[in-house]
Amino acid sequence: MPQAHAPRPIAVCLLSGGMDSAVCAAEAQQAGFDVRALSFRYGQRHGVELEAASRVARALRISDHRVVGVDLAALGGSALTDDIAVPRDRDLEGAGVPVTYVPARNTLFLAVALGWAESLGARDLFLGVNRVDYSGYPDCRPEFLRAFEALASLATAAGSERGVRFRVHAPLIELSKREIVLRAAELGVDLSLTHTCYAPRLERGPVQACGRCDACRLRLKGFAEAGLSDPIAYVPPENERP
Amino acid sequence: MPQAHAPRPIAVCLLSGGMDSAVCAAEAQQAGFDVRALSFRYGQRHGVELEAASRVARALRISDHRVVGVDLAALGGSALTDDIAVPRDRDLEGAGVPVTYVPARNTLFLAVALGWAESLGARDLFLGVNRVDYSGYPDCRPEFLRAFEALASLATAAGSERGVRFRVHAPLIELSKREIVLRAAELGVDLSLTHTCYAPRLERGPVQACGRCDACRLRLKGFAEAGLSDPIAYVPPENERP
Repeated sequence: MPQAHAPRPIAVCLLSGGMDSAVCAAEAQQAGFDVRALSFRYGQRHGVELEAASRVARALRISDHRVVGVDLAALGGSALTDDIAVPRDRDLEGAGVPVTYVPARNTLFLAVALGWAESLGARDLFLGVNRVDYSGYPDCRPEFLRAFEALASLATAAGSERGVRFRVHAPLIELSKREIVLRAAELGVDLSLTHTCYAPRLERGPVQACGRCDACRLRLKGFAEAGLSDPIAYVPPENERP
Repeated sequence: MPQAHAPRPIAVCLLSGGMDSAVCAAEAQQAGFDVRALSFRYGQRHGVELEAASRVARALRISDHRVVGVDLAALGGSALTDDIAVPRDRDLEGAGVPVTYVPARNTLFLAVALGWAESLGARDLFLGVNRVDYSGYPDCRPEFLRAFEALASLATAAGSERGVRFRVHAPLIELSKREIVLRAAELGVDLSLTHTCYAPRLERGPVQACGRCDACRLRLKGFAEAGLSDPIAYVPPENERP
């Protein structure tokens, strides 16, 4: 007699609205997890990315998508939460931590994800960090993810009382943007739903990505190298504007 | 010729409004730090503790006190954020994690403190966990604090680029409530400004502590054992009510 199907294990996946986390969530589903998605409203200057996260969650048929507000703007310190100008057209190979770095952001996001996972009885966390990120952001490196796993078991009742070992999965960690674009195509992730730009134009109808911030340029480079065209809208170059 | 005074190093201290964190902040000042205080609005059912935190910060002449909102209520799971009944009159020696446990709360609070510390150029974090807490809450144990220190250096630009080592200080970690009450007296911390109760009466004029939740009972026991009387107001016993 066949066994009843065991329920799929739950995983909490950080979902930003960008293409990396969308592909990451699809990878978690592909690996057999029942994915729950977690996004943050942390004093961003625009909510466009949260709308994108909702679209992605719906498209992936994720049953539960929560948005937790954290007013990091109260502490200042980054182009993504403050009124610091987003840099344009700069050298993507430049070393060092980007000005868009938010101090200890992934520690905070993973802490909230861990709390939710514990209350769901889950032990698996997913985030979409990749090779591009960890060249610049310290809290995207594999060593950081391993240190967070070590902390998680000590930080929770599940870990300290019942010996639950939490795992932080970063299935894209070795991938370039080109490989992420190709993987999205393989998994059927619709990248037209995602949003990447740090400085989008919102005034005239549908959102247009600037095409010039670091995030846009990395995205466009990834599509170009994959031999695919990016389905989202960009601000037209100045000489092509009406 | 005398050297100009070096500026005191900055420390970020978690300040809840309770007596432990008030004494902890005073200890940090006593140790020579320029203390900045950090509190959280995380979906508590009452803001009384934030008012207490403000009073304590003023009394200690702390130059900067920030309150960061985090809507953990969006995730559910604790008597402090949900509508679960706060237990009364229960055995304080009972083993296990209290129902007032908020999953991964200290990980989250320390992550925000770390981000603020990094933007201030500080490397010292203080929190008021003590012997009473770490018998019940996993994220108050010394092993947890050491694991967070290890994470902090990997999680930040300061740690990964400039080799800054962050320290998590818990000066009360070996103290009982009796010893904390006595230490407050020595340091001149006015405990009448603090708030401890999980289920205060707010309806009739000044706040009255219930005297029956775990937090009130531990506090009252500490004062009794120290041979001092608690200066805050409590709900009178039923047979003494008008």
